[in-house]
Amino acid sequence: VTLSAPAMRSLIEKKRAGLEHSREEIEALVGAFTRGEIDDAPVAAWLMAVCVTGMTLAETAHLTAAMAASGDTLTWGDASVVDKHSTGGVGDAVTLVAVPLAAEAGAKVAKLSGRALGHTGGTLDKLECIPGLRVDLGLEEFKSQVLRVGCAVAAATASLAPADKKFYALRDRTATIASVPLIAASILSKKIAGGAPAIVLDVKHGTGAFMKTPAEAEELGRVMRDVGERLGKRVRVVLTDMNEPLADSVGDALELDEALAALSGGGSPRLRSVAHAIAAAMLECAGLKSGIPHLGPEAFAKFVEMAAAQGGRLDEFDRAFKPARFIAAPSSGYVQRIDPRTLGELVAASKAGLPIEQARRTGLRLRKRTGDKVERGEPVIDVFETGAPILDLERLAASVTIGADPPASRQLVRALA
Amino acid sequence: VTLSAPAMRSLIEKKRAGLEHSREEIEALVGAFTRGEIDDAPVAAWLMAVCVTGMTLAETAHLTAAMAASGDTLTWGDASVVDKHSTGGVGDAVTLVAVPLAAEAGAKVAKLSGRALGHTGGTLDKLECIPGLRVDLGLEEFKSQVLRVGCAVAAATASLAPADKKFYALRDRTATIASVPLIAASILSKKIAGGAPAIVLDVKHGTGAFMKTPAEAEELGRVMRDVGERLGKRVRVVLTDMNEPLADSVGDALELDEALAALSGGGSPRLRSVAHAIAAAMLECAGLKSGIPHLGPEAFAKFVEMAAAQGGRLDEFDRAFKPARFIAAPSSGYVQRIDPRTLGELVAASKAGLPIEQARRTGLRLRKRTGDKVERGEPVIDVFETGAPILDLERLAASVTIGADPPASRQLVRALA
Repeated sequence: VTLSAPAMRSLIEKKRAGLEHSREEIEALVGAFTRGEIDDAPVAAWLMAVCVTGMTLAETAHLTAAMAASGDTLTWGDASVVDKHSTGGVGDAVTLVAVPLAAEAGAKVAKLSGRALGHTGGTLDKLECIPGLRVDLGLEEFKSQVLRVGCAVAAATASLAPADKKFYALRDRTATIASVPLIAASILSKKIAGGAPAIVLDVKHGTGAFMKTPAEAEELGRVMRDVGERLGKRVRVVLTDMNEPLADSVGDALELDEALAALSGGGSPRLRSVAHAIAAAMLECAGLKSGIPHLGPEAFAKFVEMAAAQGGRLDEFDRAFKPARFIAAPSSGYVQRIDPRTLGELVAASKAGLPIEQARRTGLRLRKRTGDKVERGEPVIDVFETGAPILDLERLAASVTIGADPPASRQLVRALA
Repeated sequence: VTLSAPAMRSLIEKKRAGLEHSREEIEALVGAFTRGEIDDAPVAAWLMAVCVTGMTLAETAHLTAAMAASGDTLTWGDASVVDKHSTGGVGDAVTLVAVPLAAEAGAKVAKLSGRALGHTGGTLDKLECIPGLRVDLGLEEFKSQVLRVGCAVAAATASLAPADKKFYALRDRTATIASVPLIAASILSKKIAGGAPAIVLDVKHGTGAFMKTPAEAEELGRVMRDVGERLGKRVRVVLTDMNEPLADSVGDALELDEALAALSGGGSPRLRSVAHAIAAAMLECAGLKSGIPHLGPEAFAKFVEMAAAQGGRLDEFDRAFKPARFIAAPSSGYVQRIDPRTLGELVAASKAGLPIEQARRTGLRLRKRTGDKVERGEPVIDVFETGAPILDLERLAASVTIGADPPASRQLVRALA
């Protein structure tokens, strides 16, 4: 299938007029763009037309399938294989906890992950704090570990949905990221290429998430579920709050440490709660309703087994952290707000340019959460720096709001109806 | 002024949200794009956002001014200097008649023209049928001829509004041509750079024009008038019908021949009528209300003088045309419709690949017009071919509709209220 310049122009005109593309049209566009047969500029115009006039579920499914088919794909032949994805947040260490938890309860978890993006952390970066641990598993190695150990967390290779990578880079340059069908197709194309028959999607909403409101998250979740189902997948969507950091920790090694604590039943109750809900959704989605996920020594052992299978020497990971500084409550009262985006940005900015070992151990840990009562001068957030002070303490202090009354409580996690 | 990638992204986001750009923002975008400092792709996304969300008159004026200022500009210091522009049609030989007519009545006509585009003819191509005639006048040569002879018709040089040329090429590739503010800015930027204080705009509507309905033409005309006035120009807009070819002739040499006839008071009454209205608007706009344009030997002489000033030897132009074939009325009745777009496309296709002299003399001449009564077998359109038959006679015949009753009459020309 090729796409001439006049044919591409017709596609743009059609989308600009808000008309629906056929499967053949979308396949031709994705194929020609991925092979470099059409320039970026007409595709950029088409993307903007999509942003403004939208796409139907059928079109979104065609786009997802075409991007998924643009590179290598995995097949499993095992109905209990499940993948998960989070739309990204701050202190979001859920994968590190939920994956071994679901695996321990019987699921085969084939998790393909990404790196840090903007103010959000990356699961791969956190995992790599374990000395020796490799995330660049080949597809066959990945598959074999999932079936043997019960879980693996690996980097999505360049050969997986290469069309999505090309589209994403162009969208980033042309302010066409924000579009529900384009976001849905981007996320799902990688999951479809990964081949798991069951997919759990953690769609976050709030100031630290891409989707600001529960309604926006619901819309994205609904589109992803419908599109996934059109493409033959079993999909569960969980909506979670991201108006404050999920875990108490923000920073690669600190989050890994807290995830390890959570696996044994410790750490922030918020992290445990969301990880438990996600693991339960994974089991249900994988058709294992009888499996009840349980945090404890077995779940921790499954993590150790997974890490070891990927070359990780967990006993060499130093879990002793000592805060260098802290910010104190400027007045007595209740914590009203801890802005997750600011915390994510501050940690990302502090890491930039540091040697990798120091960058990994840079971060924050909340000693108070939204709704907690504090006394003036009491520590609210601990700051972890391995060298000279680099974190902007003034901005960090400004990210916390203390008020006289306790704030209204927010629902942390709920399933999409 | 430079424009970073994040700043460009912000501009796209702003326009996508339908917000108004400042003058500084538009100047930065036009400057950076024209100097090649930003890629085509983000500009393509911005153009599509403009197509869908529009631009205010202020933004359109900023865009027009920035594109006009991107290259050489002319200044006149004479209030009677006037320029004109037609949005393009079939058999549109108006410039060849109206320019000398207005000049003879006292205006100084500084007409910068273009080439054939798509199914529409180009004034420069028609003028060049005169042996020796040059249209590539330098800006100083152009200026001096206008002031000395009273008129000149020259090619807009590459140095005039180069930003518009770059934008237009990108719009053509990205299906972002159809946008009232972008069309208005493109047309006016060249007129503003040309420097005439008075501008007459012939906005055509109908099946052979870019604007299909009178309402669309009115909208474009109103925007161009308002933007021109914001930029300190006197502007008159004339709306003309393009639901059938304007002149009886379609084809470079045939149209030149008919224009010469019109200058002496002959040729198609439609061509004379529109040319007269345009010349009157030019005189009024140039502040010469007392000058009444009159077709006759003086107007013809002014054309001869202008052509000679540009090196043209009009006496060597062969005005003897002999039709090679014709299409006949398939039934008796009234001519309901003669599709101008088909005629324009057929002539353009027939010329393609021919030696230039043969291409120029290829064309059509209507022997019947919409509303005329015809008998079955009577010639409706004469076909002029200098070599082997190449024009698709079947498609030509299909462009003519004969019916039992006379069609409703249409207003040929009116001023924008």
